[in-house]
Amino acid sequence: MDNVKRRRTIRKYTSRDIAPELLDQLLETSCRASTMGNLQLYSIVVTRDQKMKEMLAPLHFNQPMVTNAPVVLTFCADFHRTSVWCKERKAVPGYDNFLSFVNASIDTLLLAQTFCTLAEEKGLGICYLGTTVYNPDRIVDVLRLPRLVMPVATVTVGYPDENPAQPDRLPLEAVVHQESYHDYTRADIDRLYAYKESLPENDFFVKENKKETLAQVFAEIRYTRKDNEAMSETFLRTLKKQGFL
Amino acid sequence: MDNVKRRRTIRKYTSRDIAPELLDQLLETSCRASTMGNLQLYSIVVTRDQKMKEMLAPLHFNQPMVTNAPVVLTFCADFHRTSVWCKERKAVPGYDNFLSFVNASIDTLLLAQTFCTLAEEKGLGICYLGTTVYNPDRIVDVLRLPRLVMPVATVTVGYPDENPAQPDRLPLEAVVHQESYHDYTRADIDRLYAYKESLPENDFFVKENKKETLAQVFAEIRYTRKDNEAMSETFLRTLKKQGFL
Repeated sequence: MDNVKRRRTIRKYTSRDIAPELLDQLLETSCRASTMGNLQLYSIVVTRDQKMKEMLAPLHFNQPMVTNAPVVLTFCADFHRTSVWCKERKAVPGYDNFLSFVNASIDTLLLAQTFCTLAEEKGLGICYLGTTVYNPDRIVDVLRLPRLVMPVATVTVGYPDENPAQPDRLPLEAVVHQESYHDYTRADIDRLYAYKESLPENDFFVKENKKETLAQVFAEIRYTRKDNEAMSETFLRTLKKQGFL
Repeated sequence: MDNVKRRRTIRKYTSRDIAPELLDQLLETSCRASTMGNLQLYSIVVTRDQKMKEMLAPLHFNQPMVTNAPVVLTFCADFHRTSVWCKERKAVPGYDNFLSFVNASIDTLLLAQTFCTLAEEKGLGICYLGTTVYNPDRIVDVLRLPRLVMPVATVTVGYPDENPAQPDRLPLEAVVHQESYHDYTRADIDRLYAYKESLPENDFFVKENKKETLAQVFAEIRYTRKDNEAMSETFLRTLKKQGFL
Protein backbone atom coordinates (compact mmCIF):
# COMPACT_ATOMS: atom_id res chain seq x y z
CA MET A 1 0.00 0.00 0.00
CA ASP A 2 2.75 2.45 1.00
CA ASN A 3 4.70 1.75 -2.18
CA VAL A 4 1.71 2.68 -4.31
CA LYS A 5 0.96 5.72 -2.15
CA ARG A 6 4.47 7.04 -2.68
CA ARG A 7 4.84 6.05 -6.31
CA ARG A 8 5.76 8.33 -9.17
CA THR A 9 6.55 7.71 -12.80
CA ILE A 10 10.29 7.38 -13.49
CA ARG A 11 11.66 8.59 -16.81
CA LYS A 12 15.40 8.51 -16.06
CA TYR A 13 17.20 5.27 -15.31
CA THR A 14 20.70 4.34 -14.17
CA SER A 15 22.79 2.15 -16.45
CA ARG A 16 22.19 -0.83 -14.15
CA ASP A 17 20.63 -3.72 -16.03
CA ILE A 18 17.64 -5.72 -14.87
CA ALA A 19 18.60 -9.33 -14.12
CA PRO A 20 16.72 -11.69 -16.46
CA GLU A 21 15.72 -13.81 -13.44
CA LEU A 22 14.12 -10.80 -11.75
CA LEU A 23 12.26 -9.81 -14.91
CA ASP A 24 11.00 -13.37 -15.34
CA GLN A 25 9.92 -13.56 -11.72
CA LEU A 26 8.00 -10.28 -12.05
CA LEU A 27 6.32 -11.34 -15.28
CA GLU A 28 5.49 -14.80 -13.99
CA THR A 29 3.92 -13.41 -10.82
CA SER A 30 2.00 -10.82 -12.88
CA CYS A 31 0.37 -13.67 -14.77
CA ARG A 32 -1.58 -14.28 -11.55
CA ALA A 33 -3.71 -11.25 -12.48
CA SER A 34 -7.33 -12.03 -13.37
CA THR A 35 -7.83 -13.27 -16.93
CA MET A 36 -10.91 -14.16 -18.97
CA GLY A 37 -11.67 -17.88 -18.68
CA ASN A 38 -7.99 -18.33 -17.71
CA LEU A 39 -7.07 -17.88 -21.38
CA GLN A 40 -4.31 -15.30 -20.70
CA LEU A 41 -5.13 -13.22 -23.74
CA TYR A 42 -1.80 -11.40 -23.92
CA SER A 43 1.78 -11.50 -25.07
CA ILE A 44 4.69 -9.42 -23.82
CA VAL A 45 7.48 -8.47 -26.19
CA VAL A 46 10.70 -7.79 -24.27
CA THR A 47 13.07 -5.30 -25.91
CA ARG A 48 16.66 -5.26 -24.60
CA ASP A 49 18.51 -4.96 -27.89
CA GLN A 50 19.73 -1.42 -28.56
CA LYS A 51 18.94 -1.59 -32.27
CA MET A 52 15.37 -2.65 -31.55
CA LYS A 53 15.03 0.22 -29.07
CA GLU A 54 16.22 2.61 -31.76
CA MET A 55 13.61 1.26 -34.14
CA LEU A 56 10.88 1.69 -31.53
CA ALA A 57 11.99 5.16 -30.37
CA PRO A 58 10.55 7.24 -33.25
CA LEU A 59 7.19 5.44 -32.88
CA HIS A 60 7.19 6.78 -29.31
CA PHE A 61 7.96 10.35 -30.44
CA ASN A 62 11.64 9.80 -29.56
CA GLN A 63 10.97 9.98 -25.85
CA PRO A 64 14.43 9.30 -24.37
CA MET A 65 13.14 6.57 -22.01
CA VAL A 66 12.86 4.13 -24.92
CA THR A 67 16.57 4.08 -25.69
CA ASN A 68 17.78 4.75 -22.13
CA ALA A 69 15.77 2.17 -20.22
CA PRO A 70 17.43 -1.23 -19.90
CA VAL A 71 14.12 -2.93 -20.71
CA VAL A 72 11.14 -1.88 -22.80
CA LEU A 73 8.02 -4.04 -22.58
CA THR A 74 5.27 -3.97 -25.17
CA PHE A 75 2.10 -5.52 -23.78
CA CYS A 76 -0.09 -6.89 -26.57
CA ALA A 77 -3.69 -8.07 -26.65
CA ASP A 78 -3.30 -11.55 -28.13
CA PHE A 79 -6.00 -13.87 -29.43
CA HIS A 80 -3.58 -15.41 -31.92
CA ARG A 81 -2.05 -17.98 -29.57
CA THR A 82 -5.47 -19.09 -28.33
CA SER A 83 -6.68 -19.37 -31.91
CA VAL A 84 -3.68 -21.50 -32.92
CA TRP A 85 -4.38 -23.72 -29.93
CA CYS A 86 -8.00 -24.08 -31.05
CA LYS A 87 -6.97 -25.00 -34.58
CA GLU A 88 -4.52 -27.61 -33.29
CA ARG A 89 -7.30 -29.10 -31.16
CA LYS A 90 -10.13 -29.49 -33.69
CA ALA A 91 -11.92 -26.36 -32.45
CA VAL A 92 -12.97 -23.44 -34.66
CA PRO A 93 -11.92 -20.13 -33.03
CA GLY A 94 -14.27 -17.16 -33.37
CA TYR A 95 -12.11 -14.32 -32.10
CA ASP A 96 -11.67 -12.10 -35.14
CA ASN A 97 -14.09 -9.50 -33.83
CA PHE A 98 -14.18 -6.33 -31.77
CA LEU A 99 -15.37 -7.84 -28.51
CA SER A 100 -12.44 -10.24 -28.55
CA PHE A 101 -10.10 -7.26 -28.88
CA VAL A 102 -11.80 -5.66 -25.87
CA ASN A 103 -11.53 -8.87 -23.83
CA ALA A 104 -7.88 -9.36 -24.72
CA SER A 105 -7.07 -5.70 -24.00
CA ILE A 106 -8.57 -5.99 -20.54
CA ASP A 107 -6.49 -9.08 -19.76
CA THR A 108 -3.41 -7.32 -21.09
CA LEU A 109 -3.81 -4.14 -19.07
CA LEU A 110 -4.49 -6.03 -15.83
CA LEU A 111 -1.26 -7.93 -16.44
CA ALA A 112 0.70 -4.77 -17.31
CA GLN A 113 -0.45 -2.92 -14.23
CA THR A 114 0.25 -5.86 -11.93
CA PHE A 115 3.73 -5.98 -13.38
CA CYS A 116 4.25 -2.26 -12.72
CA THR A 117 3.09 -2.49 -9.10
CA LEU A 118 5.40 -5.45 -8.46
CA ALA A 119 8.35 -3.85 -10.27
CA GLU A 120 8.04 -0.73 -8.13
CA GLU A 121 7.89 -2.87 -5.01
CA LYS A 122 11.27 -4.29 -6.08
CA GLY A 123 12.79 -0.82 -6.40
CA LEU A 124 12.39 -0.43 -10.15
CA GLY A 125 10.85 2.62 -11.81
CA ILE A 126 8.37 2.48 -14.69
CA CYS A 127 6.86 4.76 -17.30
CA TYR A 128 3.82 4.04 -19.47
CA LEU A 129 4.13 5.33 -23.02
CA GLY A 130 0.74 6.52 -24.21
CA THR A 131 2.22 6.70 -27.70
CA THR A 132 1.64 2.95 -28.15
CA VAL A 133 -1.95 3.57 -29.20
CA TYR A 134 -0.93 6.46 -31.48
CA ASN A 135 1.28 4.38 -33.76
CA PRO A 136 0.07 0.80 -33.36
CA ASP A 137 0.49 0.10 -37.09
CA ARG A 138 4.24 0.74 -37.03
CA ILE A 139 4.74 -1.10 -33.75
CA VAL A 140 3.00 -4.11 -35.32
CA ASP A 141 5.59 -4.00 -38.10
CA VAL A 142 8.67 -3.54 -35.91
CA LEU A 143 7.71 -6.28 -33.45
CA ARG A 144 6.28 -8.52 -36.23
CA LEU A 145 2.94 -8.99 -34.53
CA PRO A 146 0.70 -11.44 -36.41
CA ARG A 147 -3.04 -11.11 -37.01
CA LEU A 148 -5.09 -11.00 -33.78
CA VAL A 149 -2.23 -9.39 -31.86
CA MET A 150 -2.44 -5.68 -31.09
CA PRO A 151 -0.08 -3.55 -28.95
CA VAL A 152 -1.96 -1.74 -26.17
CA ALA A 153 0.67 -0.54 -23.70
CA THR A 154 4.41 0.03 -23.60
CA VAL A 155 6.28 0.29 -20.32
CA THR A 156 9.91 1.33 -19.89
CA VAL A 157 11.58 -0.18 -16.82
CA GLY A 158 14.85 0.45 -15.01
CA TYR A 159 16.46 1.50 -11.76
CA PRO A 160 15.49 5.12 -10.97
CA ASP A 161 17.99 7.87 -11.62
CA GLU A 162 15.67 10.69 -10.58
CA ASN A 163 13.32 11.45 -7.72
CA PRO A 164 10.65 13.72 -9.16
CA ALA A 165 7.99 15.42 -7.05
CA GLN A 166 4.75 13.48 -6.85
CA PRO A 167 2.09 14.98 -9.14
CA ASP A 168 -1.27 16.08 -7.78
CA ARG A 169 -4.45 14.06 -8.07
CA LEU A 170 -8.06 15.24 -8.04
CA PRO A 171 -9.86 14.79 -4.72
CA LEU A 172 -11.44 11.33 -4.50
CA GLU A 173 -14.88 12.93 -4.65
CA ALA A 174 -14.13 13.91 -8.26
CA VAL A 175 -13.96 10.32 -9.50
CA VAL A 176 -16.30 8.35 -7.21
CA HIS A 177 -20.08 8.18 -7.63
CA GLN A 178 -22.37 6.58 -5.07
CA GLU A 179 -25.00 4.25 -6.62
CA SER A 180 -25.32 6.21 -9.88
CA TYR A 181 -23.44 8.84 -11.87
CA HIS A 182 -23.91 12.34 -10.60
CA ASP A 183 -23.21 15.02 -13.12
CA TYR A 184 -20.86 17.92 -12.42
CA THR A 185 -22.18 21.42 -11.90
CA ARG A 186 -20.07 24.51 -12.50
CA ALA A 187 -19.58 24.76 -8.72
CA ASP A 188 -18.40 21.13 -8.61
CA ILE A 189 -15.83 21.75 -11.31
CA ASP A 190 -14.58 24.89 -9.57
CA ARG A 191 -14.20 23.03 -6.28
CA LEU A 192 -12.74 19.80 -7.68
CA TYR A 193 -10.18 21.44 -9.98
CA ALA A 194 -9.25 24.33 -7.63
CA TYR A 195 -6.18 22.66 -6.15
CA LYS A 196 -4.86 21.46 -9.52
CA GLU A 197 -5.34 24.89 -11.07
CA SER A 198 -3.68 26.61 -8.11
CA LEU A 199 -0.38 24.73 -8.41
CA PRO A 200 2.60 26.87 -9.47
CA GLU A 201 3.79 24.20 -11.93
CA ASN A 202 0.43 24.23 -13.68
CA ASP A 203 0.35 28.00 -13.72
CA PHE A 204 3.81 27.94 -15.32
CA PHE A 205 2.52 25.39 -17.85
CA VAL A 206 -0.31 27.77 -18.84
CA LYS A 207 2.00 30.77 -19.23
CA GLU A 208 4.69 28.79 -21.05
CA ASN A 209 2.06 27.77 -23.61
CA LYS A 210 0.64 31.28 -23.83
CA LYS A 211 -2.84 30.10 -22.86
CA GLU A 212 -5.46 31.45 -20.54
CA THR A 213 -6.43 28.24 -18.71
CA LEU A 214 -4.91 24.85 -17.93
CA ALA A 215 -7.78 23.11 -19.73
CA GLN A 216 -6.79 25.00 -22.90
CA VAL A 217 -3.28 23.57 -22.71
CA PHE A 218 -4.79 20.08 -22.76
CA ALA A 219 -7.52 20.66 -25.34
CA GLU A 220 -5.58 22.90 -27.70
CA ILE A 221 -1.97 21.75 -27.42
CA ARG A 222 -1.43 18.38 -25.77
CA TYR A 223 -4.49 16.33 -26.76
CA THR A 224 -6.21 18.06 -29.63
CA ARG A 225 -9.30 17.04 -31.57
CA LYS A 226 -7.29 16.99 -34.78
CA ASP A 227 -4.68 14.59 -33.39
CA ASN A 228 -7.29 12.44 -31.68
CA GLU A 229 -9.31 12.07 -34.85
CA ALA A 230 -6.27 11.23 -36.99
CA MET A 231 -5.05 8.69 -34.43
CA SER A 232 -8.53 7.18 -34.09
CA GLU A 233 -8.37 6.41 -37.79
CA THR A 234 -4.92 4.84 -37.49
CA PHE A 235 -6.04 2.74 -34.55
CA LEU A 236 -9.22 1.52 -36.26
CA ARG A 237 -7.33 0.80 -39.48
CA THR A 238 -4.77 -1.23 -37.52
CA LEU A 239 -7.53 -3.12 -35.68
CA LYS A 240 -8.96 -4.02 -39.07
CA LYS A 241 -5.55 -5.06 -40.41
CA GLN A 242 -4.97 -7.22 -37.32
CA GLY A 243 -8.34 -8.89 -37.87
CA PHE A 244 -10.26 -7.52 -34.88
CA LEU A 245 -12.71 -5.37 -36.84
CA MET B 1 4.79 -9.89 -4.26
CA ASP B 2 3.76 -12.87 -2.13
CA ASN B 3 0.16 -11.67 -1.99
CA VAL B 4 -0.03 -11.60 -5.78
CA LYS B 5 1.73 -14.95 -6.05
CA ARG B 6 -0.87 -16.56 -3.78
CA ARG B 7 -3.90 -14.72 -5.11
CA ARG B 8 -7.06 -16.30 -6.44
CA THR B 9 -10.39 -14.89 -7.50
CA ILE B 10 -12.98 -14.94 -4.70
CA ARG B 11 -16.64 -15.41 -5.60
CA LYS B 12 -18.10 -16.07 -2.12
CA TYR B 13 -18.04 -13.39 0.56
CA THR B 14 -18.94 -13.30 4.25
CA SER B 15 -21.67 -10.91 5.36
CA ARG B 16 -19.05 -8.56 6.81
CA ASP B 17 -19.32 -5.08 5.30
CA ILE B 18 -16.40 -3.06 3.96
CA ALA B 19 -15.83 0.06 6.05
CA PRO B 20 -16.37 3.17 3.91
CA GLU B 21 -13.05 4.56 5.21
CA LEU B 22 -11.19 1.48 3.99
CA LEU B 23 -12.87 1.60 0.59
CA ASP B 24 -12.02 5.29 0.25
CA GLN B 25 -8.44 4.68 1.28
CA LEU B 26 -8.08 1.90 -1.29
CA LEU B 27 -9.64 3.98 -4.07
CA GLU B 28 -7.64 7.07 -3.21
CA THR B 29 -4.37 5.15 -3.20
CA SER B 30 -5.34 3.46 -6.49
CA CYS B 31 -5.58 6.91 -8.07
CA ARG B 32 -1.76 6.94 -7.84
CA ALA B 33 -1.76 4.58 -10.86
CA SER B 34 -0.37 6.06 -14.07
CA THR B 35 -2.83 8.23 -15.99
CA MET B 36 -2.65 10.04 -19.34
CA GLY B 37 -1.48 13.61 -18.84
CA ASN B 38 -2.66 13.28 -15.24
CA LEU B 39 -6.24 13.66 -16.48
CA GLN B 40 -7.58 10.63 -14.53
CA LEU B 41 -9.91 9.54 -17.31
CA TYR B 42 -12.16 7.38 -15.13
CA SER B 43 -15.09 7.27 -12.77
CA ILE B 44 -15.97 4.56 -10.29
CA VAL B 45 -19.61 3.88 -9.47
CA VAL B 46 -19.94 2.28 -6.02
CA THR B 47 -22.94 0.00 -5.56
CA ARG B 48 -23.88 -0.89 -1.97
CA ASP B 49 -27.65 -0.57 -2.23
CA GLN B 50 -29.37 -3.96 -2.47
CA LYS B 51 -31.94 -2.74 -4.99
CA MET B 52 -29.21 -1.42 -7.26
CA LYS B 53 -27.39 -4.75 -7.01
CA GLU B 54 -30.59 -6.51 -8.03
CA MET B 55 -30.89 -4.24 -11.05
CA LEU B 56 -27.28 -4.95 -12.05
CA ALA B 57 -27.45 -8.71 -11.43
CA PRO B 58 -29.30 -9.77 -14.62
CA LEU B 59 -26.86 -7.67 -16.70
CA HIS B 60 -24.13 -9.87 -15.23
CA PHE B 61 -25.98 -13.10 -16.09
CA ASN B 62 -27.23 -13.30 -12.48
CA GLN B 63 -23.85 -14.35 -11.18
CA PRO B 64 -24.47 -14.56 -7.40
CA MET B 65 -21.46 -12.35 -6.55
CA VAL B 66 -23.34 -9.25 -7.65
CA THR B 67 -26.03 -9.51 -5.01
CA ASN B 68 -23.90 -11.24 -2.36
CA ALA B 69 -20.83 -8.98 -2.34
CA PRO B 70 -21.02 -6.03 0.06
CA VAL B 71 -19.60 -3.75 -2.64
CA VAL B 72 -19.80 -3.80 -6.42
CA LEU B 73 -17.57 -1.36 -8.30
CA THR B 74 -18.16 -0.39 -11.90
CA PHE B 75 -15.05 1.18 -13.38
CA CYS B 76 -15.92 3.51 -16.26
CA ALA B 77 -13.81 5.16 -18.94
CA ASP B 78 -14.76 8.82 -18.48
CA PHE B 79 -13.99 11.75 -20.77
CA HIS B 80 -17.16 13.52 -19.68
CA ARG B 81 -15.75 15.17 -16.55
CA THR B 82 -12.66 16.39 -18.42
CA SER B 83 -14.89 17.75 -21.19
CA VAL B 84 -17.10 19.61 -18.70
CA TRP B 85 -13.94 21.06 -17.15
CA CYS B 86 -12.79 22.20 -20.61
CA LYS B 87 -16.13 23.85 -21.35
CA GLU B 88 -16.08 25.67 -18.01
CA ARG B 89 -12.57 26.92 -18.79
CA LYS B 90 -12.99 28.35 -22.31
CA ALA B 91 -11.44 25.29 -23.95
CA VAL B 92 -13.06 23.20 -26.70
CA PRO B 93 -12.77 19.48 -25.85
CA GLY B 94 -12.13 17.05 -28.72
CA TYR B 95 -12.70 13.71 -27.02
CA ASP B 96 -15.74 12.30 -28.78
CA ASN B 97 -13.69 9.81 -30.77
CA PHE B 98 -12.39 6.27 -30.61
CA LEU B 99 -8.84 7.05 -29.50
CA SER B 100 -10.18 8.94 -26.51
CA PHE B 101 -12.16 5.85 -25.55
CA VAL B 102 -8.98 3.78 -25.78
CA ASN B 103 -7.01 6.29 -23.70
CA ALA B 104 -9.71 6.48 -21.04
CA SER B 105 -10.09 2.69 -20.95
CA ILE B 106 -6.38 2.28 -20.31
CA ASP B 107 -6.47 4.76 -17.41
CA THR B 108 -9.53 2.98 -16.03
CA LEU B 109 -8.08 -0.53 -16.16
CA LEU B 110 -4.80 0.54 -14.55
CA LEU B 111 -6.83 2.08 -11.73
CA ALA B 112 -9.08 -0.99 -11.40
CA GLN B 113 -6.17 -3.39 -11.23
CA THR B 114 -4.26 -1.27 -8.71
CA PHE B 115 -7.40 -1.27 -6.58
CA CYS B 116 -7.65 -5.06 -6.77
CA THR B 117 -4.01 -5.61 -5.79
CA LEU B 118 -4.36 -3.27 -2.82
CA ALA B 119 -7.72 -4.72 -1.75
CA GLU B 120 -6.23 -8.22 -1.71
CA GLU B 121 -3.28 -6.96 0.34
CA LYS B 122 -5.86 -5.80 2.92
CA GLY B 123 -7.45 -9.26 3.11
CA LEU B 124 -10.35 -8.60 0.75
CA GLY B 125 -11.26 -10.87 -2.15
CA ILE B 126 -12.22 -9.67 -5.62
CA CYS B 127 -13.83 -10.97 -8.79
CA TYR B 128 -13.83 -9.29 -12.21
CA LEU B 129 -17.07 -9.67 -14.11
CA GLY B 130 -16.32 -10.03 -17.80
CA THR B 131 -20.02 -9.53 -18.44
CA THR B 132 -19.54 -5.75 -18.19
CA VAL B 133 -18.50 -5.57 -21.82
CA TYR B 134 -21.32 -7.89 -22.91
CA ASN B 135 -24.15 -5.62 -21.74
CA PRO B 136 -22.64 -2.12 -21.61
CA ASP B 137 -25.83 -0.54 -22.99
CA ARG B 138 -27.95 -1.70 -20.07
CA ILE B 139 -25.29 -0.85 -17.49
CA VAL B 140 -25.19 2.68 -18.95
CA ASP B 141 -28.93 2.92 -18.29
CA VAL B 142 -28.92 1.49 -14.77
CA LEU B 143 -25.98 3.61 -13.58
CA ARG B 144 -27.15 6.66 -15.58
CA LEU B 145 -23.84 7.14 -17.33
CA PRO B 146 -23.77 10.27 -19.49
CA ARG B 147 -22.24 10.64 -22.95
CA LEU B 148 -18.44 9.99 -22.99
CA VAL B 149 -18.70 7.57 -20.08
CA MET B 150 -18.47 3.83 -20.82
CA PRO B 151 -18.34 0.92 -18.34
CA VAL B 152 -15.25 -1.25 -18.90
CA ALA B 153 -14.87 -3.41 -15.78
CA THR B 154 -16.96 -4.50 -12.82
CA VAL B 155 -15.36 -5.85 -9.68
CA THR B 156 -17.17 -7.45 -6.76
CA VAL B 157 -15.38 -7.02 -3.42
CA GLY B 158 -15.81 -8.54 0.03
CA TYR B 159 -14.19 -10.61 2.76
CA PRO B 160 -13.52 -14.13 1.44
CA ASP B 161 -15.85 -16.96 2.45
CA GLU B 162 -14.07 -19.58 0.37
CA ASN B 163 -10.55 -20.73 -0.28
CA PRO B 164 -10.52 -22.15 -3.80
CA ALA B 165 -7.54 -23.93 -5.33
CA GLN B 166 -5.31 -21.68 -7.38
CA PRO B 167 -5.92 -22.15 -11.11
CA ASP B 168 -3.09 -23.11 -13.45
CA ARG B 169 -1.25 -20.66 -15.69
CA LEU B 170 0.61 -21.30 -18.92
CA PRO B 171 4.40 -21.47 -18.58
CA LEU B 172 5.95 -18.00 -18.86
CA GLU B 173 7.51 -19.02 -22.17
CA ALA B 174 4.00 -19.13 -23.67
CA VAL B 175 3.40 -15.40 -23.24
CA VAL B 176 6.86 -13.80 -23.47
CA HIS B 177 8.64 -13.01 -26.73
CA GLN B 178 12.25 -11.81 -26.89
CA GLU B 179 12.76 -8.84 -29.24
CA SER B 180 10.00 -9.81 -31.66
CA TYR B 181 6.95 -12.06 -31.83
CA HIS B 182 7.76 -15.69 -32.47
CA ASP B 183 4.93 -17.69 -33.87
CA TYR B 184 3.80 -20.97 -32.34
CA THR B 185 4.47 -24.27 -34.08
CA ARG B 186 2.37 -27.34 -33.43
CA ALA B 187 5.15 -28.65 -31.15
CA ASP B 188 5.10 -25.35 -29.20
CA ILE B 189 1.37 -25.61 -28.64
CA ASP B 190 1.65 -29.24 -27.53
CA ARG B 191 4.39 -28.36 -25.06
CA LEU B 192 2.88 -25.11 -23.73
CA TYR B 193 -0.65 -26.44 -23.23
CA ALA B 194 0.35 -29.93 -22.01
CA TYR B 195 0.08 -29.16 -18.31
CA LYS B 196 -3.25 -27.32 -18.66
CA GLU B 197 -4.72 -30.14 -20.73
CA SER B 198 -3.47 -32.77 -18.30
CA LEU B 199 -5.30 -31.36 -15.26
CA PRO B 200 -8.14 -33.55 -13.93
CA GLU B 201 -10.45 -30.52 -13.54
CA ASN B 202 -10.00 -29.64 -17.20
CA ASP B 203 -10.51 -33.23 -18.23
CA PHE B 204 -13.74 -33.23 -16.22
CA PHE B 205 -14.73 -29.97 -17.92
CA VAL B 206 -14.28 -31.58 -21.34
CA LYS B 207 -16.32 -34.67 -20.43
CA GLU B 208 -19.05 -32.68 -18.68
CA ASN B 209 -19.51 -30.68 -21.87
CA LYS B 210 -19.36 -33.78 -24.05
CA LYS B 211 -16.47 -32.42 -26.10
CA GLU B 212 -13.31 -33.95 -27.40
CA THR B 213 -10.82 -31.23 -26.43
CA LEU B 214 -10.57 -28.40 -23.91
CA ALA B 215 -10.22 -25.87 -26.73
CA GLN B 216 -13.61 -27.00 -28.06
CA VAL B 217 -15.21 -26.17 -24.71
CA PHE B 218 -13.92 -22.62 -25.07
CA ALA B 219 -14.59 -22.10 -28.77
CA GLU B 220 -17.92 -23.94 -28.99
CA ILE B 221 -19.55 -23.39 -25.60
CA ARG B 222 -18.01 -20.67 -23.44
CA TYR B 223 -16.84 -18.03 -25.93
CA THR B 224 -18.48 -18.71 -29.25
CA ARG B 225 -18.20 -16.80 -32.51
CA LYS B 226 -21.95 -16.22 -32.51
CA ASP B 227 -21.94 -14.63 -29.04
CA ASN B 228 -18.77 -12.65 -29.74
CA GLU B 229 -20.19 -11.21 -32.93
CA ALA B 230 -23.51 -10.28 -31.33
CA MET B 231 -21.74 -8.67 -28.37
CA SER B 232 -19.31 -6.83 -30.65
CA GLU B 233 -22.32 -5.18 -32.24
CA THR B 234 -23.79 -4.22 -28.86
CA PHE B 235 -20.47 -2.81 -27.71
CA LEU B 236 -19.91 -0.77 -30.88
CA ARG B 237 -23.51 0.49 -30.81
CA THR B 238 -23.05 1.56 -27.18
CA LEU B 239 -19.75 3.27 -27.99
CA LYS B 240 -21.61 5.23 -30.68
CA LYS B 241 -24.45 6.08 -28.32
CA GLN B 242 -21.94 7.25 -25.70
CA GLY B 243 -20.28 9.48 -28.28
CA PHE B 244 -16.97 7.66 -28.68
CA LEU B 245 -17.50 6.47 -32.27
